[in-house]
Amino acid sequence: MEINEVHKKPTLKVVKIGGGVIEDPEALAHFCALFASLSGPKILIHGGGKSATLLAKKLGVDTKIIDGRRITPKESLEVIVMSYAGAANKNIVSSLQANHCNAIGLSGADGNSILAHKRILTEIDYGYVGDIDLVNAALIDSLLALGLCPVFCAITHNGNGQLLNTNADTIAAAISAAMAPIYETSLYYCFEKKGVLSNIEKNIVIPVLTPSKMQIEIASGVIQAGMIPKLSNGFTALREGVHEVIIGNENILKGKEPFTRLKMTAL
Amino acid sequence: MEINEVHKKPTLKVVKIGGGVIEDPEALAHFCALFASLSGPKILIHGGGKSATLLAKKLGVDTKIIDGRRITPKESLEVIVMSYAGAANKNIVSSLQANHCNAIGLSGADGNSILAHKRILTEIDYGYVGDIDLVNAALIDSLLALGLCPVFCAITHNGNGQLLNTNADTIAAAISAAMAPIYETSLYYCFEKKGVLSNIEKNIVIPVLTPSKMQIEIASGVIQAGMIPKLSNGFTALREGVHEVIIGNENILKGKEPFTRLKMTAL
Repeated sequence: MEINEVHKKPTLKVVKIGGGVIEDPEALAHFCALFASLSGPKILIHGGGKSATLLAKKLGVDTKIIDGRRITPKESLEVIVMSYAGAANKNIVSSLQANHCNAIGLSGADGNSILAHKRILTEIDYGYVGDIDLVNAALIDSLLALGLCPVFCAITHNGNGQLLNTNADTIAAAISAAMAPIYETSLYYCFEKKGVLSNIEKNIVIPVLTPSKMQIEIASGVIQAGMIPKLSNGFTALREGVHEVIIGNENILKGKEPFTRLKMTAL
Repeated sequence: MEINEVHKKPTLKVVKIGGGVIEDPEALAHFCALFASLSGPKILIHGGGKSATLLAKKLGVDTKIIDGRRITPKESLEVIVMSYAGAANKNIVSSLQANHCNAIGLSGADGNSILAHKRILTEIDYGYVGDIDLVNAALIDSLLALGLCPVFCAITHNGNGQLLNTNADTIAAAISAAMAPIYETSLYYCFEKKGVLSNIEKNIVIPVLTPSKMQIEIASGVIQAGMIPKLSNGFTALREGVHEVIIGNENILKGKEPFTRLKMTAL
């Protein structure tokens, strides 16, 4: 009788960057060099940010945002697809390629990688916004096995020919969770701040955040509304088997403190 | 001693569609259903056409075309990337997915699939236009082996972070030629006409065209300037081992005559 060996899962880094990095060519070049230097399999997810809003303005398309969520009528969706899947995605991919990272840009329609449905109508009509049903982990794993680095923009599809605008933080969490059975997955939320702050003026970072601590900090007004969906996505990822969730600026990719680590319990 | 068997290469269909099809939602839906129904491994290459010009106009970017070739200054390149890699590519991919064709949209930067260099300056400065150096046949073959259908837009990169605008007919010929050692490759140039016409008024198609016949028809004015690069690309593909090159409207995908077949000799 053979003794079962404990097979350690390979590691996977899933990194989400905000729109701010993409809009500044110097910051983008710096980030791409840093990301490309990460060893092992990795996935990048990017938002679109202000460039889509700027493009919409130039094209005379109104941009409406309710509770930090973009409302996406048909004409906004077209602008978003051009901006996210076109401009942003291809600039990132070509910049990563220049840094010897074999990036491949994807929307959720490509390879049927992320299936979603149009958000069910409630009191707010979000328009062509997609809520994720399924991440195609098998396809993503096949691409990683080819030595490719998938770079996702914040667009999904419904499988019936409709593209959908989907929150990039949510995509990052869903991809991390889908890959967790195959990989020991670390999810990094990179943005302009050093982490979740307990004092914005003094730039003091909360080093560890649990769901209960989050509730306390929301109640006391320390954690602002805009941060809540990101944290909620992060905790969902942990609950679904993701190994760790780290929030901070790009220094987190070098393991450099300070940053905020999400944990299910304080232990 | 074993007798060597003749191993027949698997077949591959490489289809290029013009911009006209993409701009008309009904024509695009019809084309995607037809293309999706083709059996075996297949690759689609699409141009961008008038939608990039329209977008440029809305954004106040001038579009200059010399000898049927688009001049691509920096600001035009940005528009082209949004229009080709964003809007056109993702609409086609999601439409093919709706028809159960597992499409994956690519620019030449994605997976380092098409390397090019910025066109050498002559009397005309074409701007950010790329001439192809290398097609990554190994990557494309790996994607085909995963059951994916690569859908290329007319954008390449130089490997140093620069995206480049590249003629879609040329990309189709270069991909066909690169895949020819592995596959018995058929190249289909789909456009709005029934083939290369000997009489435009009467819509009469030249069924077989050889390089020498092409020269005669150019000299007599039957073949117009706009058609010459397409034919030249087609003959290059044949010379580089592509099995067949067919020119006509989308009915050529059903093998339906009339169409124009390029041949190296009249025999």
